Amino acid sequence: MSETVKVGLIGFGIMGKAHADNIKTIEGCQLVAVADSKPERLKSAKEQFGSDIAVFEDLDAMLDSGKIGAVFVAVPHYFHPEMAIKAFDKGMHVLIEKPAGVYTKHVREMNAAAEKSGKVFGIMFNQRSIPAHQKIKDLVDSGELGEIKRTNWIITNWYRPQSYYDSGGWRATWKGEGGGILLNQCPHQLDLWQWMCGMPAKVRAYCSFGKYHDIEVEDDVTGYVEYENGATGVFISSTGEAPGSNRFEIAADNGSLVFEGGKIAFWRNRVSERQFNKTFKGTFGTPECWKCEIPADGKTPNEQHKTVLQDWVNSINTGSKLLAPGAEGLNSLLLSNAMLLSSWTDTMIELDNFDDDMFFSMLQERIANSKANKKSNKN
Amino acid sequence: MSETVKVGLIGFGIMGKAHADNIKTIEGCQLVAVADSKPERLKSAKEQFGSDIAVFEDLDAMLDSGKIGAVFVAVPHYFHPEMAIKAFDKGMHVLIEKPAGVYTKHVREMNAAAEKSGKVFGIMFNQRSIPAHQKIKDLVDSGELGEIKRTNWIITNWYRPQSYYDSGGWRATWKGEGGGILLNQCPHQLDLWQWMCGMPAKVRAYCSFGKYHDIEVEDDVTGYVEYENGATGVFISSTGEAPGSNRFEIAADNGSLVFEGGKIAFWRNRVSERQFNKTFKGTFGTPECWKCEIPADGKTPNEQHKTVLQDWVNSINTGSKLLAPGAEGLNSLLLSNAMLLSSWTDTMIELDNFDDDMFFSMLQERIANSKANKKSNKN
Repeated sequence: MSETVKVGLIGFGIMGKAHADNIKTIEGCQLVAVADSKPERLKSAKEQFGSDIAVFEDLDAMLDSGKIGAVFVAVPHYFHPEMAIKAFDKGMHVLIEKPAGVYTKHVREMNAAAEKSGKVFGIMFNQRSIPAHQKIKDLVDSGELGEIKRTNWIITNWYRPQSYYDSGGWRATWKGEGGGILLNQCPHQLDLWQWMCGMPAKVRAYCSFGKYHDIEVEDDVTGYVEYENGATGVFISSTGEAPGSNRFEIAADNGSLVFEGGKIAFWRNRVSERQFNKTFKGTFGTPECWKCEIPADGKTPNEQHKTVLQDWVNSINTGSKLLAPGAEGLNSLLLSNAMLLSSWTDTMIELDNFDDDMFFSMLQERIANSKANKKSNKN
Repeated sequence: MSETVKVGLIGFGIMGKAHADNIKTIEGCQLVAVADSKPERLKSAKEQFGSDIAVFEDLDAMLDSGKIGAVFVAVPHYFHPEMAIKAFDKGMHVLIEKPAGVYTKHVREMNAAAEKSGKVFGIMFNQRSIPAHQKIKDLVDSGELGEIKRTNWIITNWYRPQSYYDSGGWRATWKGEGGGILLNQCPHQLDLWQWMCGMPAKVRAYCSFGKYHDIEVEDDVTGYVEYENGATGVFISSTGEAPGSNRFEIAADNGSLVFEGGKIAFWRNRVSERQFNKTFKGTFGTPECWKCEIPADGKTPNEQHKTVLQDWVNSINTGSKLLAPGAEGLNSLLLSNAMLLSSWTDTMIELDNFDDDMFFSMLQERIANSKANKKSNKN
């Protein structure tokens, strides 16, 4: 048996208590410390866990305490790379909340630090643990679907009223969050999309900023992508639609898959389209097609987080492969950054040649002009 | 009572016999003549209708015969405007098959000739007669849906195998047809889309030419549009997907509508989203939403054609408003031409400033390089 992983939780905000409760249920690890810059939150941690837990206002103090060997970074997006890099430099294993960060430049630095450290680096893409998502990935990876021709995700059921944005002056500002729906609401879908179907080669997006709300950042997005094999894709999201849709479709050589309402339908061609196309002799005709209902049972959100936590601890203890490797957090952020950059520059963005510095500098311009508190600065 | 409308049918090809049979069932009109450049087709018309019918190898001869007051133009796309213009110049009422033509320049000339003649000008957009389509238009026009935010039509169930394209040397060539899926398969959807939701202001499309088939023209399209009110839209079509999808969605202020599998679902907000957005005080929340199943009974294809024919004849006889005015054929063709021009020029196209001449000249280049017979010219 390996040793118990001693975990320090960084950030004891809204999700902090839930994360702490989850960590306590995970086998092979122990929550030994909490770091947060706000004393009242540390007081609340002490009340919850008693004298078992060490608390730190200063992150460095926790990292240098000798009490922990791993950290879970659960602070606002901007701080994920910075704190993860610190932890790697101190030889810690790291799990970060999603998104990986706000801009790719920073996340690449984090990935390099992780690589250099050789430690286990995970990211809380808890939705990768949902059986239906795993099943869709399985249908792609196993070849059941055949070569992908087109992907399409309409994920517009992220409705947020103005009151949501007004509930925190930092919300939906370039300075406070660094992005809108792509960074705050969509990281799971952007991750699942690339996890299941692979990364596109090019992105052309049309983002609208403050279209449905009094906010600085994007609240409505249509993104068009092209993959290396010539396949195309569309990703549509909005916080301005009610009730909104959540429908994911993959068109492929062996048929098409639709995931909607928690159900996976696979319209399966008896012979592949490419084969049919080559051999069919009539004028009109289509491959024989069967509607297959694919089993896809769900889990509760709480179990999803526990699954990723347990997986990370197991990897530390046994060297097992991670369900959600931290380095892969770059992919969804790259999609998100590329959609913004495409809108800002009105161009098609090639992901292999993504200009991290240009994105960073265009983001900085927006941060410089950011109205940190929307209400007091509104015209 | 008005006089019986005496109709001359131009084109007695594959659809000719069916059209002739339909015309004979329409009240207030009579099929008195058929024109076709191929003698064997005229022979077949004579066999079908006996001595009641006059036949002409020459269109001008039919128009000058004094026997007819109206024509139905059912010839290949390229000839619609040319023949319609001739007929208007001779004072005929005109019904044309869809699409209105191959390029907007020509169709605008046809519309001007129609306008000048003052005659009744219809187009065979038979799918406008389908009750479900009329119901969706009704939900938009009556304000039930409220202001439109987003439209989305995935119409990829136009599968065609290579053998279809090989069945005629003219098929899917710039010279023979002047376009691919946008011109041959999609005119109904492009028309219904603009008929129900209005014309967009801008079009940016990504067309692939001969992607899934050995053809010259487009067989795969993703089009992004923006409307005057800021709404966005996406139109996706392909002849390379099996089984393909047919799903039409409208997201609007009062909810969202999905038309799929012949069923209309209207997810109706009890208060509009814009109203909710202004007045809701909590952090998270959405308008109460009801799933409404909207009645949408269908008609057979044959009845659709008869409905449009009867409507055209009624308009000639009584001055009633047309379900499918011929001049509106420009709209779907403009969408189709704009999607091609956007792909060719790699730019966003503004429809109000559409460059008919540029499209025409870029099409001519392609016609000049067209391999009329694909099989014999294939590398």
